[in-house]
Amino acid sequence: MSTNSSQTPSAQELYNLDNPIFCCYVFWATVLVAKMLLMSTLTAVQRFRYKIFPNQEDLFFKNTEVQFNDPHVERVRRAHRNDMENILPYFIMALIYISTNPDATVACNLFRVASVARLVHTLVYAVYPVPQPARLIAFASMQLITYYMAAVVALRTLRFI
Amino acid sequence: MSTNSSQTPSAQELYNLDNPIFCCYVFWATVLVAKMLLMSTLTAVQRFRYKIFPNQEDLFFKNTEVQFNDPHVERVRRAHRNDMENILPYFIMALIYISTNPDATVACNLFRVASVARLVHTLVYAVYPVPQPARLIAFASMQLITYYMAAVVALRTLRFI
Amino acid sequence: MSTNSSQTPSAQELYNLDNPIFCCYVFWATVLVAKMLLMSTLTAVQRFRYKIFPNQEDLFFKNTEVQFNDPHVERVRRAHRNDMENILPYFIMALIYISTNPDATVACNLFRVASVARLVHTLVYAVYPVPQPARLIAFASMQLITYYMAAVVALRTLRFI
Repeated sequence: MSTNSSQTPSAQELYNLDNPIFCCYVFWATVLVAKMLLMSTLTAVQRFRYKIFPNQEDLFFKNTEVQFNDPHVERVRRAHRNDMENILPYFIMALIYISTNPDATVACNLFRVASVARLVHTLVYAVYPVPQPARLIAFASMQLITYYMAAVVALRTLRFI
Repeated sequence: MSTNSSQTPSAQELYNLDNPIFCCYVFWATVLVAKMLLMSTLTAVQRFRYKIFPNQEDLFFKNTEVQFNDPHVERVRRAHRNDMENILPYFIMALIYISTNPDATVACNLFRVASVARLVHTLVYAVYPVPQPARLIAFASMQLITYYMAAVVALRTLRFI
Repeated sequence: MSTNSSQTPSAQELYNLDNPIFCCYVFWATVLVAKMLLMSTLTAVQRFRYKIFPNQEDLFFKNTEVQFNDPHVERVRRAHRNDMENILPYFIMALIYISTNPDATVACNLFRVASVARLVHTLVYAVYPVPQPARLIAFASMQLITYYMAAVVALRTLRFI
């Protein structure tokens, strides 16, 4: 790919591991995927700790009934839902942002800040709740980065509306 | 890429900004990502307007308690969840549909109709509720388009089952 | 692409229908997308069967009011949410796993097992509930496969942290 430097950026192959931007995206996306899967484990931990199960077939303990709205379980579920609302759109947005062949330093640092912000978001929301604005800052970091990528991509592809 | 017209479609590079189909997908995916992120903002607006907060650390006003099940907040949250249920699978489905190198006019119009339909869905569900079947038609538009893409892709790749 | 066999794996074009691994991913991703969309239909079936509607404008029958927390509807909705929590991150994880150009037999069988496991998950959760550990095994299958892919990818791209 390095021999293609005379081509227009978009003619290069950007979606492979020879592209450091793609590599950086891939690494941090993997971290975020693993983090999201761990939310299921964290929910399960809370369910067993407080014996709160939503299905009849999940009642592993005697003398328990299906229960909802336990605050400890619901807090983790809200954090998990917030992940889905923010990280999943980010995955697509960042992936197509790579197609604009952005500056490597800018792109990689955006991926890093957005991903670390979401790790912090989980810590201060679901693991060890702390006063605001900790969660708000963590939440806004990825949102603003995703909006920035959206603006870059939309301006580049506006004539295909 | 235009010089590759003698190649089989799949041997072309389809995932770059030289491919107008990919450009059109990218533009409308960006619109939908931004729309989804705005659902978080709309939820926050409703939460502050009606002072409904789900976490102890979010109680920015005196004399409020954590509250759930407010109809104004929950309506936006249902619309947001419906987005996740439909737009996120569409992102992947449309992305892999591009690998079949579909007719550009068909593909681009599918992306446009599906995306505008979801903008309408949000308007008639979360912003200004109107009687059915407005929401049903908006909902069905993207679903049918996603099913159509799924059928095209599944027929092309069936032997890899 | 077949003439590029002397190149390093990552320099090949992996994201097109000449790559059997990508074809297999695409086929099974399509199956899972269709399965996820059918969850909306299944929810609608339950809503009409038990006349449980969450919005004022959805009250298609006389003498009904908006209702929540019906166990038949909520079971399908929990299954649908579990799909979003697991299948959507899997879509991205498996897609970027392909960039490592894995062994075709390993990769394709991972895609097949993970996808069939989620079909089973839906059957034993939302269609015909059976005692545990049926759902637990189906759930764990895709999770472990996703973790495995995450480990492979993270080790390959760790220096881009």
